[in-house]
Amino acid sequence: MENKKLFDYVVDETLNIFVLIKSAEVRVAKNGKDFLSMVFEDRSGDISGKFWDASSKDIQNFEAGKVIFLNGKRENYKGSPQIKILGIRLATETEPNNPNLYTKKAPMSEADMREEVSKLLFDITNPNWNRVVRYLLQKYDKQFYTYPAAKTNHHAFQGGLAYHTISILRLAKQVSNQYPQIDRSLLYAGSILHDLGKTVELSGPVSTTYTVEGNLLGHIVIMDGEIVKACQELKISDSSEDILLLRHMIVSHHGLKEYGSPIEPLLLEAVVLHALDDLDASIQMVTGALDHTKGGTFSERLFAMNGRNFYKRLDHKTE
Amino acid sequence: MENKKLFDYVVDETLNIFVLIKSAEVRVAKNGKDFLSMVFEDRSGDISGKFWDASSKDIQNFEAGKVIFLNGKRENYKGSPQIKILGIRLATETEPNNPNLYTKKAPMSEADMREEVSKLLFDITNPNWNRVVRYLLQKYDKQFYTYPAAKTNHHAFQGGLAYHTISILRLAKQVSNQYPQIDRSLLYAGSILHDLGKTVELSGPVSTTYTVEGNLLGHIVIMDGEIVKACQELKISDSSEDILLLRHMIVSHHGLKEYGSPIEPLLLEAVVLHALDDLDASIQMVTGALDHTKGGTFSERLFAMNGRNFYKRLDHKTE
Amino acid sequence: MENKKLFDYVVDETLNIFVLIKSAEVRVAKNGKDFLSMVFEDRSGDISGKFWDASSKDIQNFEAGKVIFLNGKRENYKGSPQIKILGIRLATETEPNNPNLYTKKAPMSEADMREEVSKLLFDITNPNWNRVVRYLLQKYDKQFYTYPAAKTNHHAFQGGLAYHTISILRLAKQVSNQYPQIDRSLLYAGSILHDLGKTVELSGPVSTTYTVEGNLLGHIVIMDGEIVKACQELKISDSSEDILLLRHMIVSHHGLKEYGSPIEPLLLEAVVLHALDDLDASIQMVTGALDHTKGGTFSERLFAMNGRNFYKRLDHKTE
Amino acid sequence: MENKKLFDYVVDETLNIFVLIKSAEVRVAKNGKDFLSMVFEDRSGDISGKFWDASSKDIQNFEAGKVIFLNGKRENYKGSPQIKILGIRLATETEPNNPNLYTKKAPMSEADMREEVSKLLFDITNPNWNRVVRYLLQKYDKQFYTYPAAKTNHHAFQGGLAYHTISILRLAKQVSNQYPQIDRSLLYAGSILHDLGKTVELSGPVSTTYTVEGNLLGHIVIMDGEIVKACQELKISDSSEDILLLRHMIVSHHGLKEYGSPIEPLLLEAVVLHALDDLDASIQMVTGALDHTKGGTFSERLFAMNGRNFYKRLDHKTE
Amino acid sequence: MENKKLFDYVVDETLNIFVLIKSAEVRVAKNGKDFLSMVFEDRSGDISGKFWDASSKDIQNFEAGKVIFLNGKRENYKGSPQIKILGIRLATETEPNNPNLYTKKAPMSEADMREEVSKLLFDITNPNWNRVVRYLLQKYDKQFYTYPAAKTNHHAFQGGLAYHTISILRLAKQVSNQYPQIDRSLLYAGSILHDLGKTVELSGPVSTTYTVEGNLLGHIVIMDGEIVKACQELKISDSSEDILLLRHMIVSHHGLKEYGSPIEPLLLEAVVLHALDDLDASIQMVTGALDHTKGGTFSERLFAMNGRNFYKRLDHKTE
Amino acid sequence: MENKKLFDYVVDETLNIFVLIKSAEVRVAKNGKDFLSMVFEDRSGDISGKFWDASSKDIQNFEAGKVIFLNGKRENYKGSPQIKILGIRLATETEPNNPNLYTKKAPMSEADMREEVSKLLFDITNPNWNRVVRYLLQKYDKQFYTYPAAKTNHHAFQGGLAYHTISILRLAKQVSNQYPQIDRSLLYAGSILHDLGKTVELSGPVSTTYTVEGNLLGHIVIMDGEIVKACQELKISDSSEDILLLRHMIVSHHGLKEYGSPIEPLLLEAVVLHALDDLDASIQMVTGALDHTKGGTFSERLFAMNGRNFYKRLDHKTE
Repeated sequence: MENKKLFDYVVDETLNIFVLIKSAEVRVAKNGKDFLSMVFEDRSGDISGKFWDASSKDIQNFEAGKVIFLNGKRENYKGSPQIKILGIRLATETEPNNPNLYTKKAPMSEADMREEVSKLLFDITNPNWNRVVRYLLQKYDKQFYTYPAAKTNHHAFQGGLAYHTISILRLAKQVSNQYPQIDRSLLYAGSILHDLGKTVELSGPVSTTYTVEGNLLGHIVIMDGEIVKACQELKISDSSEDILLLRHMIVSHHGLKEYGSPIEPLLLEAVVLHALDDLDASIQMVTGALDHTKGGTFSERLFAMNGRNFYKRLDHKTE
Repeated sequence: MENKKLFDYVVDETLNIFVLIKSAEVRVAKNGKDFLSMVFEDRSGDISGKFWDASSKDIQNFEAGKVIFLNGKRENYKGSPQIKILGIRLATETEPNNPNLYTKKAPMSEADMREEVSKLLFDITNPNWNRVVRYLLQKYDKQFYTYPAAKTNHHAFQGGLAYHTISILRLAKQVSNQYPQIDRSLLYAGSILHDLGKTVELSGPVSTTYTVEGNLLGHIVIMDGEIVKACQELKISDSSEDILLLRHMIVSHHGLKEYGSPIEPLLLEAVVLHALDDLDASIQMVTGALDHTKGGTFSERLFAMNGRNFYKRLDHKTE
Repeated sequence: MENKKLFDYVVDETLNIFVLIKSAEVRVAKNGKDFLSMVFEDRSGDISGKFWDASSKDIQNFEAGKVIFLNGKRENYKGSPQIKILGIRLATETEPNNPNLYTKKAPMSEADMREEVSKLLFDITNPNWNRVVRYLLQKYDKQFYTYPAAKTNHHAFQGGLAYHTISILRLAKQVSNQYPQIDRSLLYAGSILHDLGKTVELSGPVSTTYTVEGNLLGHIVIMDGEIVKACQELKISDSSEDILLLRHMIVSHHGLKEYGSPIEPLLLEAVVLHALDDLDASIQMVTGALDHTKGGTFSERLFAMNGRNFYKRLDHKTE
Repeated sequence: MENKKLFDYVVDETLNIFVLIKSAEVRVAKNGKDFLSMVFEDRSGDISGKFWDASSKDIQNFEAGKVIFLNGKRENYKGSPQIKILGIRLATETEPNNPNLYTKKAPMSEADMREEVSKLLFDITNPNWNRVVRYLLQKYDKQFYTYPAAKTNHHAFQGGLAYHTISILRLAKQVSNQYPQIDRSLLYAGSILHDLGKTVELSGPVSTTYTVEGNLLGHIVIMDGEIVKACQELKISDSSEDILLLRHMIVSHHGLKEYGSPIEPLLLEAVVLHALDDLDASIQMVTGALDHTKGGTFSERLFAMNGRNFYKRLDHKTE
Repeated sequence: MENKKLFDYVVDETLNIFVLIKSAEVRVAKNGKDFLSMVFEDRSGDISGKFWDASSKDIQNFEAGKVIFLNGKRENYKGSPQIKILGIRLATETEPNNPNLYTKKAPMSEADMREEVSKLLFDITNPNWNRVVRYLLQKYDKQFYTYPAAKTNHHAFQGGLAYHTISILRLAKQVSNQYPQIDRSLLYAGSILHDLGKTVELSGPVSTTYTVEGNLLGHIVIMDGEIVKACQELKISDSSEDILLLRHMIVSHHGLKEYGSPIEPLLLEAVVLHALDDLDASIQMVTGALDHTKGGTFSERLFAMNGRNFYKRLDHKTE
Repeated sequence: MENKKLFDYVVDETLNIFVLIKSAEVRVAKNGKDFLSMVFEDRSGDISGKFWDASSKDIQNFEAGKVIFLNGKRENYKGSPQIKILGIRLATETEPNNPNLYTKKAPMSEADMREEVSKLLFDITNPNWNRVVRYLLQKYDKQFYTYPAAKTNHHAFQGGLAYHTISILRLAKQVSNQYPQIDRSLLYAGSILHDLGKTVELSGPVSTTYTVEGNLLGHIVIMDGEIVKACQELKISDSSEDILLLRHMIVSHHGLKEYGSPIEPLLLEAVVLHALDDLDASIQMVTGALDHTKGGTFSERLFAMNGRNFYKRLDHKTE
């Protein structure tokens, strides 16, 4: 068996590899028989394929979350990669059947992320902000380091939430150095909490969906409520200037009302947080799209980037 | 002395009446001398006037909030009413010098409003909503019945907040009767709390401005935080379905993201609350503008109503 | 044979019931053979299904408007209900083959609607408005009580136009009671006529489409022209204030220019009519969507409601 | 006395000429005395000036519509021309005191315009359109040749409505020649009627304002109603295809809903009419602004042209 | 063999004609076999069809650009015309196998277009503009007379770029005659160059796509750069007023920033150029859509015309 | 004489200091006499004041660009600072009469800025970009280090263009370090050239206005033309991939078409350049507004920041 991954194969090449079933939906074909519309995943990305004439036993066997051995052919359908399934079977216990081996992860280990965040916490010198941040980070510790930052779009992988937060913190550090008028404590505290509400808005690290609470309140309102509760626990007034500023950082971080911020940024640090959040998300999305683009051509349309197709230069820099 | 009010005088008529100074700003005239740009108020409305060559003693005397005896002439300046000041003096203790006699008020007494709200509370049969609403109404009792519903625009008078809320509740009652699929308890609870955050967002019933908390968080986020705190006090889970629905009512009541709702209405009752809020505010604003408009002509532009001039028919119905 | 309706069946259940063919389009399958893309309807709603390998005789037989006996299986395709057709045949004369038995209707009888409207007409005390309204109601009597209020979206069922109008009139009655400054006659007259032009804009109660006149002029301009003609018949000046106000009610009822009103509401009553029209349509659309939604989940996207998915609470109130 | 006109004078030059008072409003100066804010007009354009310390007799004398002899100095105030009044008196009967001598007029005589329109009518070969157009042109004959095409903006001068219509007809002729697929009759008929409703929407050729009917219905709806009435008079069905097309031309001529067309152009000829209307109005507005602009500089902002300042080239072409 | 063209056949009619393969994409059918999704073209228009069970040899043979003999049946699929392929074979050398016989062309010969443009060049009397225009026309001579004016939408046929330019020039001539204040030289020069950058933005007359340069710079910026270079070659200052005006004509011709003009029209001639460009494109698109529409019905949606469906009158004028 | 600056004085304090006349416009007062509307400037900022009853000699003397000795009183007018002029005279030759002593400057010396840019140039390792950047920096050397970055808004001071560029370069350095997939050379080259066209668009470092070329083409198109010319000088193909990418960086740097970029960013580096440009400008504007704001209050409205008022916290961090 080969050691290649899904995206290492070219069109028309035959593959025989272990992959994870990311999703599998039963549908009725035009000939009246059931088939499975599947998505396969490994660390190189995900590709769809159709399993024709699926028996009810097949449907039971090949569920999302299972590792399978896939025999297929790499094809192209309307410009998107696709697998023509020749045969699949479940991986046995003696084979690499742990789903975790196949899911995409943040490019840092959980331990490293935890350490980097811990160090930065010391730079939040304002005691109120420091206490609230530590309290909430601890409350949602497990989720913070495993959840994605979004269902789709940017940082939609395990650990994406913490990784996105760390990227912003690194930018925040440089910007605070360059512009001394910025309150570093406030910018760091806001950066750490800005998306933490996603641990309640989203269902979890795998097969992520929105929770009812996420749909009805959204992560901005959820996190604001969490800060209010934290203040009560910690005996800090939730309408002291310190806490008003921190709540404002969270509430305004989408930048504009039409993007879901009920109040637009009215603090220098809130302006900066929104800009850095946007910058990191954009870089991540464009980079992700260019990863699958051939030099000298344009990427697929990125809907979250105003529907544009990005160009990968002919002699693209390799990192 | 006459018993007429500010808006009872026609252009060129001389007036000699007691009025309240609503605001008084010192400015420098083109001749280099100080003057006071004043706004006078009684229950018929407010009109501006300029007090030329104001001495420093005049400036000290004639502050906002003082009752004065005004001798002047009613004029017109670029289509707006104005008073040419011939002489002013402070009202003495034996004269009607209580500012409350001159400010506009809701057309219901505080006692009547309190009673009407109290009765309606019994129709909130869901115990969680009932307890949260009673708790918050009690916490902000004094403010709820005296604050305006806005700084300018609709219901910008003492008691306006409670009066606007009652108007919505009356509509809500009829709509719940007509459409049985509506959850009456939820609609009532949402109606009562929807603008209660204005008791924190605004500075008070007189010379109303926005507080720092109001500017940085807005009344939607403020009230959501209050519900969270109330739940903690009352030992109700703030993420039970009941409370999520109630929070959603408040969070979504501006109807669209661009109007400051971070989440748009996703409940039938939230759709209805937004519509009734809008309907009552529109009726109040148009009615107010038509009150000062002559039959057969158009009102001044109403900026909050898309900048339109409303028409008062020639044989306008008198209430 | 069972007494169940289309939406009473769960996925994978077999059905054997009479239904109406709402539409049937011939298409070419991937195997080159013709098939019929059908929609079946009864009073519980409508569901689509595909009839494979349709002969030319089948195509002739199974037209829109015919009642058939359907043997099939309830399935799900990409989240939408669908019928897998096992066999269909036309209903015979001894079977329930009247199409009217299967189409959705307004929840009031035509007689009741007629009676309710008749009574309200007496409250239009202005003689000009009363005469114009009676004249036009009589002219389009048959259509008014049978047409839908729209091709799709809200009140898209037989009698929907009158039912939507009556719902608005009921709201209008309550609002006129609550706000005495509203001219009840004008609000009622405008409510009755506001959508009456749809009797010309739309093709009829069944398989509703837009007429050429509907596309080129729209129901707003059509009804305005009808009022002008009615005035000529009734010897009323079409530029008297009374008639200008009535025409303005119709012309402005979409609320904003971008929604097709050439003039935006400039009368208090026009503001109210637009708001009530919107409110009733929204309630009807959300209610309709929630009818097919399971408690604790979100409805399908409602495009006419800003593309939102509405939530049906877990313990949803049953009417 | 000189033969120069208002715009022939340069800054600081003294003028002694007859002009018309276009408007004169009484205001109160900062010193408490009345003054007149006046606008003077002759065929070169209009300029404002302030008449200080106006006595009540002055106010009576110097009304809009009177011809006066003006002694003043040409000045500049914040970039706008202005007259410093040194003295004014009413023109006597032996002097040129006819207001018509001073108002701006269309650059064609009424007779010439009438003749050009008459000739073009013969090219409307469709009998229904021809009859309706002739009927309405005759009904509003006097107004059509004297009204302006707008209160301000383009063609805001006596006869402007007919002149603007003729300019469009000339363009329509060329376009019909170049593109034979265009129905010349329909394009001409629509061009003539498109703005004819302005004879009802506006108050008249002098001191033009909007009428109540104009505000409540707008010229589009007004003219559509006029066509309906004309059809009744002429025994033509108002829902025949011919009349639907003609009504559509009027109803859609603003091009987009947000510009006040309840229906957007759905006929080739309606697309062309809107484009030519826009083109002629734009050329007229830009030309008007450049007339008062020095070569090598930019004009004042034109609000109706997206707020732009237009450039007049250094060696600008003289006509 | 018949002499009919693709659009001469009615539904269900059998065709046996030579056509050009406009495009042919390999796809995988639901039965797992390859098929070709083809578009056929002749001078009556283009129609799609599917070639099932395509062998690898078929795929090699039936490429875009090849002429074939098509045996098929005209069908309708969801309202769009379609060909059911019964058999196809390549045209032989003795048959009409020149692709040029089948592609749509401008309705003027290249020679006639060249002549018409040449004549108009003499009316560009300003020597700088004349020289720049002649220089660039010569540089891109071949492309100018063969390229389309767009990839899809208006004038998307061979020679479309020159033909669209000539249509504008004809309109420009009439408008310059009617409005003498327009600088004819500038309007002509701008008209000729406005879209000339498309010879670099687009890939060529057949199977037109955007070039990398086209995507990254766009034809507006490309042409501006070309003018700068031409000036260097011709020793004309690129910042003289003459050249600034010409560059402004190109840079502003999309009319608004959101349509891709970095600067909006600030010259009378730039306003006119934008309007004429728009007018000709609109007429061409609507005419094209109506060509395939039956009298008394509405065309397909035109996305570039605000998504509207245009009406073809029952007794549509034949040219 | 004191050593204080304009903004060191509180309201009602008397000042006797040397300042620069930034602008002085002649206007006519309500009493008919000329006055000068002046703006005074020193390195603490600028304040306006009115010089009443100005003689023609005063008007000649007190021009923009002159240094004067000002005796006045600090006042407040509608919330804006203002000077009541008690007396002014021109500074003599023995006094500090060099205008440069009073104008605001970038917080780095020209020499330091030149040095920092020079160093960074070595990191542009791509030879084509390096040569073009060096060529253009040299061509506009003097202007680059003295011009402001804008007429008003951000970095509107001497040397502002270079300082803004350097701020972006510093951010670009950090971002390139953090995200190795970014092409540092391209980002640096684009950063340096992005606003260099302002040296042609703006008139100069003092009393900055837009040039005719600036208005008609804008700095984006100007700089693109400059790159094209530089390539010709340097014998580099202006359509090589290197140059297309560089031109795209300049052309797209406003981020959206509606902000004046004819093409939106399609390169990762272009996305980043736009974000950093925005970030630095925002920080500069907010910081500038907060400099004049008291702790615990909100700044004046910043129109370029969506009209918001920014909050300065009570215990604002001092740099």
